Amino acid sequence: MAVNVVGTYHSKVGRLEESVYDLLIQAGRGALEDAGVAAKDIDGVWIGNFSGGGFNSQEHLAPCVVDIDPDLRFKPATRVENACASGSAAIAAAKNAIEAGEADLALVIGVEKMTCLDTAGVTKVLAMASYWPEEGALGMTFPGLFAEYAKGYMAKHNISGEDLRTTLARVAAKNHNNAMANPLAQMPWDCTYQDILDRPDKKNPVVAEPLRLFDCSLVSDGAAALVLASEKKAKELKQNLVELSALVHTTDYLPISKRSNSEFVAGKIAIQKAYELANITVDDVDFAEVHDCFTIAEVLAYEAMGLVSDGQGRRAIEEGLVAVGGKLPVNASGGLKAKGHPVGATGVSMAVLATRQLLGEAVGHQVEGAEVGLTYNIGGSAASNYALIFKKVQ
Amino acid sequence: MAVNVVGTYHSKVGRLEESVYDLLIQAGRGALEDAGVAAKDIDGVWIGNFSGGGFNSQEHLAPCVVDIDPDLRFKPATRVENACASGSAAIAAAKNAIEAGEADLALVIGVEKMTCLDTAGVTKVLAMASYWPEEGALGMTFPGLFAEYAKGYMAKHNISGEDLRTTLARVAAKNHNNAMANPLAQMPWDCTYQDILDRPDKKNPVVAEPLRLFDCSLVSDGAAALVLASEKKAKELKQNLVELSALVHTTDYLPISKRSNSEFVAGKIAIQKAYELANITVDDVDFAEVHDCFTIAEVLAYEAMGLVSDGQGRRAIEEGLVAVGGKLPVNASGGLKAKGHPVGATGVSMAVLATRQLLGEAVGHQVEGAEVGLTYNIGGSAASNYALIFKKVQ
Repeated sequence: MAVNVVGTYHSKVGRLEESVYDLLIQAGRGALEDAGVAAKDIDGVWIGNFSGGGFNSQEHLAPCVVDIDPDLRFKPATRVENACASGSAAIAAAKNAIEAGEADLALVIGVEKMTCLDTAGVTKVLAMASYWPEEGALGMTFPGLFAEYAKGYMAKHNISGEDLRTTLARVAAKNHNNAMANPLAQMPWDCTYQDILDRPDKKNPVVAEPLRLFDCSLVSDGAAALVLASEKKAKELKQNLVELSALVHTTDYLPISKRSNSEFVAGKIAIQKAYELANITVDDVDFAEVHDCFTIAEVLAYEAMGLVSDGQGRRAIEEGLVAVGGKLPVNASGGLKAKGHPVGATGVSMAVLATRQLLGEAVGHQVEGAEVGLTYNIGGSAASNYALIFKKVQ
Repeated sequence: MAVNVVGTYHSKVGRLEESVYDLLIQAGRGALEDAGVAAKDIDGVWIGNFSGGGFNSQEHLAPCVVDIDPDLRFKPATRVENACASGSAAIAAAKNAIEAGEADLALVIGVEKMTCLDTAGVTKVLAMASYWPEEGALGMTFPGLFAEYAKGYMAKHNISGEDLRTTLARVAAKNHNNAMANPLAQMPWDCTYQDILDRPDKKNPVVAEPLRLFDCSLVSDGAAALVLASEKKAKELKQNLVELSALVHTTDYLPISKRSNSEFVAGKIAIQKAYELANITVDDVDFAEVHDCFTIAEVLAYEAMGLVSDGQGRRAIEEGLVAVGGKLPVNASGGLKAKGHPVGATGVSMAVLATRQLLGEAVGHQVEGAEVGLTYNIGGSAASNYALIFKKVQ
């Protein structure tokens, strides 16, 4: 009894004029319109939002869905939070509701409005996704946590700082270039990795050694939405269907001190289990949208997907495996790095992008002939891990 | 395919020494122990928590469940938030997972650590559960929002301020007295309603006219937890079972300006629908734990339950219908008013209290012969509404 995607919406990503409420409402209306579904037929709404409290002084965002359409009044609406994986968490909750028979049609919205705070303010709010007593409270930031991965990865695999910097610049350049073809992306940039390496320090400063500004994803506003449907309802609504074939969620210790700092251990488990449930291997995956909140995270994702073995992440980018046209295009949309990263929206954004690829509707950045897509969304420094497999229904 | 409760835990409620992490861990371990279930057999964990960010600088609380037991590592763990109904929201998510076949055994924990902030700080964090642009940002507080209900109720039903004050004092006195029999309660007090009315103004000051200090629930730390099981698994584990026979969640507009200020419209719908699903009427309900965040809310809950008709709430308390030993004892535990209100924990607390009543284990405050219980948990000024029916399995 598979769950299907029957409607999508994706906002522009960037510094937007819209409030968090506007973004939520536009996303909900957009997905309903795309699905051709009336609000009265929606059985429940799930919102992925990381920190409406921290960014917008708005906890309890879920009831605001009634402003999408008065026919949503009296329906269940729920906010789900797992840091930067809140969007995938909302998808998971909606999927369960459909599989439980509590809903035939579910609206899922991921939303975050971050640019109302300055960079220091955003950094502080994001740090609440770390284990506060041992990390955030001591001044650790997310660039700092992912710098721990970069250092751990270099040490484990005996990679030089210069080599890693080149690999990371290649990841950044790929994603900025990919974003050129995505009209919704926040930071399209026609550049080479050498352009990034050549930038003077003051134009690409160290944020947390060895990570520099161009290794970091963006501070973004944005929203994305899906209408999910039971198989029966989906077939009534659409001819071309995309199926959510697997969703696996794994949790690891919150503080990085209790986990590996050179690989995404729980992420590997989630992705491999998702392959099993969808009855595929990495060779069947036609594209992936993965959580490149920092460039090092994309390298670790190549390994977590099993595209290359541990320590060989650089090969994936150097040999063009992850380029559009390569063996497994990764972040054809530009990824978090260049499409942007409105944190609570990101998991839903990935799912929307995957759906559009499978429908042949990824305007500008289509992966030709795509039939199977993976999304890999993480929360915190990979304490929460979600792997989703989407398939074009033949 | 009913979901059953097979284990419970309830902390003491009050100003506790434990951190939010300690409370979470104790609750999880306590419920597992009570269920006689090993952590390795749990298929997923759901956390109800309103504002770990606002109170404790800790968003992304869910992964901390791995500290309950290392065998929870790599399992799904998710935080769910709907303001003061976050606990019920977590139960709803876990129930869906069980009914979807994604879990046979689910651990649900509600937790909030509030006393780390002073009263003004708590008031500000709670205000983020209102519609911020129109309420919190303009200085509206939760006592203020429920004062709107008190004023709307008086106006609608032509009730004098003096009469309402007496009714509300009766509610408060009943709950403080009930709390005397609950060893976990925060504010047991052997008093009469006249004692409350007789307090000098400075010992029962107006907080938001017409609500006074003794109309308000407490600032509390606390946690509660449940192990929920599929019917098959429950029968393997326990002889005496409690079934979650219905859970209905309804949403109304977030700002009170868009809703009735004299009744819980969406709450009525939720409760009546829950009765239907459980195939009962209000006459079958042996006890209820309802959301008396302010005394006026308990009066409105009497009417939402259908115990008395609209405007007749005072009869329920004056005639003793809601007293222990009455037709439908309400908040035998002391309720939010006297047991305490650790906001994200409250929905789970209510469910634990209901389960213990039905098992005959409500030490000190047992409602004799209870077979059917209702919990009614609200978020915000009743924008989120959850009605749950628990039954003793015969």
